[in-house]
Amino acid sequence: MTVRIAVIGAGLMGADHARIVAADLPGATLQVVCDSDAGRARTVAETCGAADVATDPEAAIVRADVDAVIIASPDHTHAPLVLACIRSGKRVLCEKPLSQTPAECLTVMKAEMATGARQVQVGFMRRYDRAYAEMKSALDQGRIGRALMMHNFHRNVATPAADFTGAMAITNSAPHEFDVVRHVLGCDYATISAAQAKRSDAVVAPVVMVLETSDGQIVTIEINNNAAYGYDVRAELVGETASIAMNPVAYTRTDRALAAGTAYDTDWRGRYAEAYRRQNRAFVRFVETGAFPDVAASVWDGYAAACVAEAGVRALAEGRKCPVERVPRPEFYA
Amino acid sequence: MTVRIAVIGAGLMGADHARIVAADLPGATLQVVCDSDAGRARTVAETCGAADVATDPEAAIVRADVDAVIIASPDHTHAPLVLACIRSGKRVLCEKPLSQTPAECLTVMKAEMATGARQVQVGFMRRYDRAYAEMKSALDQGRIGRALMMHNFHRNVATPAADFTGAMAITNSAPHEFDVVRHVLGCDYATISAAQAKRSDAVVAPVVMVLETSDGQIVTIEINNNAAYGYDVRAELVGETASIAMNPVAYTRTDRALAAGTAYDTDWRGRYAEAYRRQNRAFVRFVETGAFPDVAASVWDGYAAACVAEAGVRALAEGRKCPVERVPRPEFYA
Amino acid sequence: MTVRIAVIGAGLMGADHARIVAADLPGATLQVVCDSDAGRARTVAETCGAADVATDPEAAIVRADVDAVIIASPDHTHAPLVLACIRSGKRVLCEKPLSQTPAECLTVMKAEMATGARQVQVGFMRRYDRAYAEMKSALDQGRIGRALMMHNFHRNVATPAADFTGAMAITNSAPHEFDVVRHVLGCDYATISAAQAKRSDAVVAPVVMVLETSDGQIVTIEINNNAAYGYDVRAELVGETASIAMNPVAYTRTDRALAAGTAYDTDWRGRYAEAYRRQNRAFVRFVETGAFPDVAASVWDGYAAACVAEAGVRALAEGRKCPVERVPRPEFYA
Amino acid sequence: MTVRIAVIGAGLMGADHARIVAADLPGATLQVVCDSDAGRARTVAETCGAADVATDPEAAIVRADVDAVIIASPDHTHAPLVLACIRSGKRVLCEKPLSQTPAECLTVMKAEMATGARQVQVGFMRRYDRAYAEMKSALDQGRIGRALMMHNFHRNVATPAADFTGAMAITNSAPHEFDVVRHVLGCDYATISAAQAKRSDAVVAPVVMVLETSDGQIVTIEINNNAAYGYDVRAELVGETASIAMNPVAYTRTDRALAAGTAYDTDWRGRYAEAYRRQNRAFVRFVETGAFPDVAASVWDGYAAACVAEAGVRALAEGRKCPVERVPRPEFYA
Repeated sequence: MTVRIAVIGAGLMGADHARIVAADLPGATLQVVCDSDAGRARTVAETCGAADVATDPEAAIVRADVDAVIIASPDHTHAPLVLACIRSGKRVLCEKPLSQTPAECLTVMKAEMATGARQVQVGFMRRYDRAYAEMKSALDQGRIGRALMMHNFHRNVATPAADFTGAMAITNSAPHEFDVVRHVLGCDYATISAAQAKRSDAVVAPVVMVLETSDGQIVTIEINNNAAYGYDVRAELVGETASIAMNPVAYTRTDRALAAGTAYDTDWRGRYAEAYRRQNRAFVRFVETGAFPDVAASVWDGYAAACVAEAGVRALAEGRKCPVERVPRPEFYA
Repeated sequence: MTVRIAVIGAGLMGADHARIVAADLPGATLQVVCDSDAGRARTVAETCGAADVATDPEAAIVRADVDAVIIASPDHTHAPLVLACIRSGKRVLCEKPLSQTPAECLTVMKAEMATGARQVQVGFMRRYDRAYAEMKSALDQGRIGRALMMHNFHRNVATPAADFTGAMAITNSAPHEFDVVRHVLGCDYATISAAQAKRSDAVVAPVVMVLETSDGQIVTIEINNNAAYGYDVRAELVGETASIAMNPVAYTRTDRALAAGTAYDTDWRGRYAEAYRRQNRAFVRFVETGAFPDVAASVWDGYAAACVAEAGVRALAEGRKCPVERVPRPEFYA
Repeated sequence: MTVRIAVIGAGLMGADHARIVAADLPGATLQVVCDSDAGRARTVAETCGAADVATDPEAAIVRADVDAVIIASPDHTHAPLVLACIRSGKRVLCEKPLSQTPAECLTVMKAEMATGARQVQVGFMRRYDRAYAEMKSALDQGRIGRALMMHNFHRNVATPAADFTGAMAITNSAPHEFDVVRHVLGCDYATISAAQAKRSDAVVAPVVMVLETSDGQIVTIEINNNAAYGYDVRAELVGETASIAMNPVAYTRTDRALAAGTAYDTDWRGRYAEAYRRQNRAFVRFVETGAFPDVAASVWDGYAAACVAEAGVRALAEGRKCPVERVPRPEFYA
Repeated sequence: MTVRIAVIGAGLMGADHARIVAADLPGATLQVVCDSDAGRARTVAETCGAADVATDPEAAIVRADVDAVIIASPDHTHAPLVLACIRSGKRVLCEKPLSQTPAECLTVMKAEMATGARQVQVGFMRRYDRAYAEMKSALDQGRIGRALMMHNFHRNVATPAADFTGAMAITNSAPHEFDVVRHVLGCDYATISAAQAKRSDAVVAPVVMVLETSDGQIVTIEINNNAAYGYDVRAELVGETASIAMNPVAYTRTDRALAAGTAYDTDWRGRYAEAYRRQNRAFVRFVETGAFPDVAASVWDGYAAACVAEAGVRALAEGRKCPVERVPRPEFYA
């Protein structure tokens, strides 16, 4: 028995998911690749060896030969398509963000709770990254004492679009940090403040956020979408007795021309390939067993990320510290 | 269509191969786990979900429901079992060493050539490791100039057996270095000399080898089987204009008690997990297509490693530089 | 001709200055060691080979056999003793802070300006550290593009006193960061906000500050006075095209017990020994020539540090972003 | 009282010694700079502020206003000038090598012993380098167990002269390694073998040596005089329970153009500036007190280096392992 998966969206991220399902997930089959651009769907389907292609996502979701769905279509379609999956009883892995508004996340939450069981996994794949896992494990096992601070840096070579803004840095780039820090620390955000540097050119300048958690920890997050020098994610978790930090991972270093150097990637795919693989394997087991994976992000986690992003946008616009508001956590997501 | 694989040998290495086949190789099925110790075979088979178990390797090889074989039984059984695979027309991935004597390797070579096609892949998995691949690529693309030297260090926490000797360091541990250096440099060894340090206790002391290649490069290899501090493999390839070296891979570092530290593994499995996975995937494709994988080690490579090991043992015993002798390379392995 | 120096204060810092003057400054002589505790003065004087000891700092300053003064006495005495030096026409190197109140700094400024020439060097020795010098040079030479952010981390093993507070982290520990960042960036602070983590024990918890400069850069500063694991200062300067960061300096690394480790110091003296030496040499040349050293910190710099510290204390107390206020910079300090 | 020093030789190395004496050695004065090229002597003397210049080294040595001598003239003049210093009762710091022939070293040894006291310090300054000191200290304090191996790499950007040979790599470059390894391990060499790589161009190819000590340790030394990429010295001391290695020392690292990089120096002066300073301070104390410095290299150490170099040249020429021969160590050098 194999899990037959429909991948919705055949862009960069969808193509990656299709490849993982087809080549890297024993127990799963790439059944349909769906994209509103039929040619793009066909290219990905042929490259990966999918059984079929489609252009209408809702139709693809309800197909009898589809057991589960991975959503990697444009951000604003995420929540409606997740709702369609819930309606048709198909478990779904939805790329982040679940939605950019907390309100829409709550709609999804209500729909999922109405089914009486977990249906939705949100694609915060960093929870499956070895570095964050080692940090969380060090904290949980008491090897660094109680957590005091977590410092996070997210740097891209350049923004995909010229009209990227500081608010988008908070809503589109920062959610990975918002979620993985919550996951590692095991707590929620109370306040957020944000400041943006000035650049001499037209591209978006870096944003620095400071968050306070409900347990009194300080979290800093830098989002630098035009770092130019490479794709670079860093994190350090500072405890009361010790500190644990992410190492850059480079398999070789080269001595040349009066310098010793290691290479940066141009994007996230190399750094997180293993995390995506583990996340998607966990999803296949979730589909098979119905047991929500320990490490995975839920609809609640997607909602929590949307809440802090919303407060962060306000904090940046108003130049002041803002509270992060949330509804109480339902027992369903305990 | 799936490739049904028999894994011969259910020790540490065989269990690892069984796990990879069962959980990590789309397109392959773990059909039989075979070990002379029936209980050990059963344990591995149950853990991994194998279809069947067996205690007689020759019988397992000829089964109709077995398409291909992975040999991970004791070293002295490797060549006889590879010959059995060749006889029954089953492609085989044989753990290193192919044999500890060049003569026996030649017997395998003759049998394989008689079939008119490649049947045997030798398990020098380091060829699939990213660090060595980056070093080879840097050399082949001219980014470091012509190769001058390659320095190699192989360190284990401790030898498995107390009666491990310096000669065994050369015949059992060094072949990985012998092979991957030949692979990276693309040349063969002309001479070898070897020296062994003295320890104050009873365990085997490190052996240092210096080899000259047919192209005039110098290769140094340290085998330290009782390094105590951790499992640690290092390599540096020095070119005429630049140098490229293997980095230690550690996802995190910890600051504690007046020190910044990164962890060592206790054995090779973490460091080379990805290389084994890639190697075994290449083997499945080899079984499916009959095309020998570009990067994989052949019977000729197994023979070359045995020749240099034999000369190394002599060099260590006699305290002098010894020539490495080989038959001419058959066109079949060009 | 040698510069005869009086060192005022024979505590940890004063003893270090006495040692540098006596053993490491060609062209200078350690003439007097002065401390209100006569025994402490004598111990330092004997260890370093000083010509004389004293207990009254004002008397020591006016001595005819004293050409110049280094002040390393308790913080609240700094400004009054600097004024005494100015009155007696002795050039002075004053340990940081010049004063903890901007108002007192303005008094010193007025006194120095009244002499018509520079008399006072403030001991912000990090300006003489190689790492910061390399960062400044990279920025000034255009090798990283325009500066966008500077991240700074200051960690001590433990606070000297149990009643150390978050406000003291800002007034006593952070001034080194405040000054060296201003020096590297070549600009001033516009606003500051501050947050403090919570600890589970009684010692002072870390403080995180975010500052905006008049040029639109973002500066983050962490002061963690009870980091436990070691003395650790870090800094990264992020430019529009590249980034330059301070490396940890460790001459050796040790592989032991499944870890590779490098050592941390327990305090600042090892890390900044060379910077103190260079700073004090610059001071001797200043005394000899009257030309204020290029890199050194002036009374204006001491005032600037006091202004931002004062605003930081307010920001922490009020939980909001505060403007940093200063009088206009006099031409005298241009 | 100040020690008045004559520096013999105003080349690269002599100019550096003159600068150290003049600017960095409290208690010493640069009295004379002597070079057969009067213009060169004058340039260095003026730059450093020497009292006088000279062109005849023997005359400079015997001057009444010279208390001690530093020899940095061409290698073949070292031993004769050291003998002249001994004759005139002046303590001397002689740049390495003391001589390139063991026989000439024995002549100096005899002359020094005839005075009944130590007169000569040999300029193996690496003994004063922090990295080697930390390695020796780790070994002596039992923190790595008994020493098993020491690996050493010496790389220059390029040889100064085109006619540099492999033999010269052994006699001119390797002595630093020969000496500091003996110093760290506290033992002597029994045998040496040597091999040289082949280059595709005319410059000298790297030489790799393997030495066995009288205590059964293995020492490897690579001398790569045309490494191209930078000046780079590495060392690792492997003990029975742990290993300690030299770290590269770089104060900053730069992220730029898809790479993280740290800089190499073009020559040894930056890396060993502190070691030269410490060595020369020890020499001044030696002159003042007559007590030979603990760490410093003696005539015996110069002789030991010459013996192993001589055996190494033979080993390279004959392609075989050669014994290292020495006279018994006189009680005078115990």
